[in-house]
Amino acid sequence: MSPTPTDELIQRPIGVFDSGVGGLTVAKAIHQALPHEKILYVGDTARVPYGTKSKDVIQQYTREILTKMDAAEVKAIVVACNTVSALAHDVLEEWKDLIPMIDVLTAGVEATIDHLYPHKNSQSIPTVGVLGTAATISSNAYESHLTQRWPELQVRSQACPLLVPLAEEGWDGQSDVVRRTLEVYLEPLQTHSLDAVILGCTHYPLFRDAIEAQLSSSPMIVDSGEAVAQSLRAQLQEHGLERLESTSASSSRPSTNWLECWVTDRPDHVQGLAERILGEPITEVAHITLD
Amino acid sequence: MSPTPTDELIQRPIGVFDSGVGGLTVAKAIHQALPHEKILYVGDTARVPYGTKSKDVIQQYTREILTKMDAAEVKAIVVACNTVSALAHDVLEEWKDLIPMIDVLTAGVEATIDHLYPHKNSQSIPTVGVLGTAATISSNAYESHLTQRWPELQVRSQACPLLVPLAEEGWDGQSDVVRRTLEVYLEPLQTHSLDAVILGCTHYPLFRDAIEAQLSSSPMIVDSGEAVAQSLRAQLQEHGLERLESTSASSSRPSTNWLECWVTDRPDHVQGLAERILGEPITEVAHITLD
Repeated sequence: MSPTPTDELIQRPIGVFDSGVGGLTVAKAIHQALPHEKILYVGDTARVPYGTKSKDVIQQYTREILTKMDAAEVKAIVVACNTVSALAHDVLEEWKDLIPMIDVLTAGVEATIDHLYPHKNSQSIPTVGVLGTAATISSNAYESHLTQRWPELQVRSQACPLLVPLAEEGWDGQSDVVRRTLEVYLEPLQTHSLDAVILGCTHYPLFRDAIEAQLSSSPMIVDSGEAVAQSLRAQLQEHGLERLESTSASSSRPSTNWLECWVTDRPDHVQGLAERILGEPITEVAHITLD
Repeated sequence: MSPTPTDELIQRPIGVFDSGVGGLTVAKAIHQALPHEKILYVGDTARVPYGTKSKDVIQQYTREILTKMDAAEVKAIVVACNTVSALAHDVLEEWKDLIPMIDVLTAGVEATIDHLYPHKNSQSIPTVGVLGTAATISSNAYESHLTQRWPELQVRSQACPLLVPLAEEGWDGQSDVVRRTLEVYLEPLQTHSLDAVILGCTHYPLFRDAIEAQLSSSPMIVDSGEAVAQSLRAQLQEHGLERLESTSASSSRPSTNWLECWVTDRPDHVQGLAERILGEPITEVAHITLD
């Protein structure tokens, strides 16, 4: 990384990737926090979900996507996939020396600690709930990252494998199937008074209101998309890479000109869900191949 | 195919494949109908589910699996994946000249027609309900195969994308989430009196009782695993390939000696679900790579 970034470097997009289109919740949060940045989104929709796959397979896919993003000349990389953040940590570490990079797990853990630590006292140790896919939860990654930072912290984790298919089916927090499913998943956590709940999967912000409504305590809800956006802004500023204004050429184009979307399966298969997540039409969705 | 099969040919296993382990419901049905046959099961668990992928991707995966099974010297191939049966029909047709092959879609359609056709009369045209994944239903494959055979037949199709994740979560027909989900899916079909309902996905037999309990008419339930087993027996007999007795060496081995199971992701990830489907322990699960 050059100590004085060229304008060409600053103009480059931020690369954001996930196994599917769920990570668009993260891209949306980044756009809201950093509206002048362009985003190149890569969703490995041909191989989604990663949550059921093994560590070796996930690490191999991660290398393929990072190589693709590097070739596309992004200025920073956001890992919007919790499963990749949890299981391909070693692969991400190799790349962090080469390019500014932030992952949803690290950002979510930092936001949680930053919120709870100022209230630290020896009488009352906070309890954090973590919701995620089966792979994320069984990796124990959130728990181990949280307790590395604060060894006494109580962490209660719950796998919620049905929430991604429910989101993809378009069933929202109004659906009684969603509410009953959340009841089943949240019940084991409710025996504790929770101080924070981490939404450890990019689809879960779609159910944020329904999750909050069912929690008997009123914990801080940690949306890793928002956490990533704050952490990314700090990293871009540190490297002098923040894009402070949109070019006049691009500002006259349609509203989604900030986003270029690449997927590994047929674009029309995900367009509906992608637009539901973003709340606006996507103009540029391209098909790519990996490996 | 030689007109007089050698004993070596008869001893070969039957190849059964699916995108994941759901097709073990089919393997189990084949074992019950043809207890002397050995089965080589291939589950592409690293790339499951196929139901959300495009036709091109599914055809490419199908070619890879057929090539793998051919190299493993199976004597017949059973396509236990509805998505492959529906979307890779052209690929399967290329192979049918080379090896006896039966797919769940063709077998399910034939069993339905065989059941309904004898009662044919011009006053009352039967109505068939088809349940399947989003890809199977949107391919229209069941409807087009049924009406090719019987043009006047009424077909009502319903995609049920949540049933596979519910089965994989281990939630059964006793769960109120499953029952409420089935209610939502079956309601649009209930405006008609159904004469048959095809379970057009290999996971759905796990919910057979719950589905039957919610149907107000008492239709024939077509389980494609059972249909495949009958059709396979006929094809093996026609080619003189039926294995009439187990060898004494193998009959002294444990009960699952009839099944060899190959998966593309870590075997331990699917062992639990696989054993729940089969109702017995699996002794041989091996990891393979495709492509």
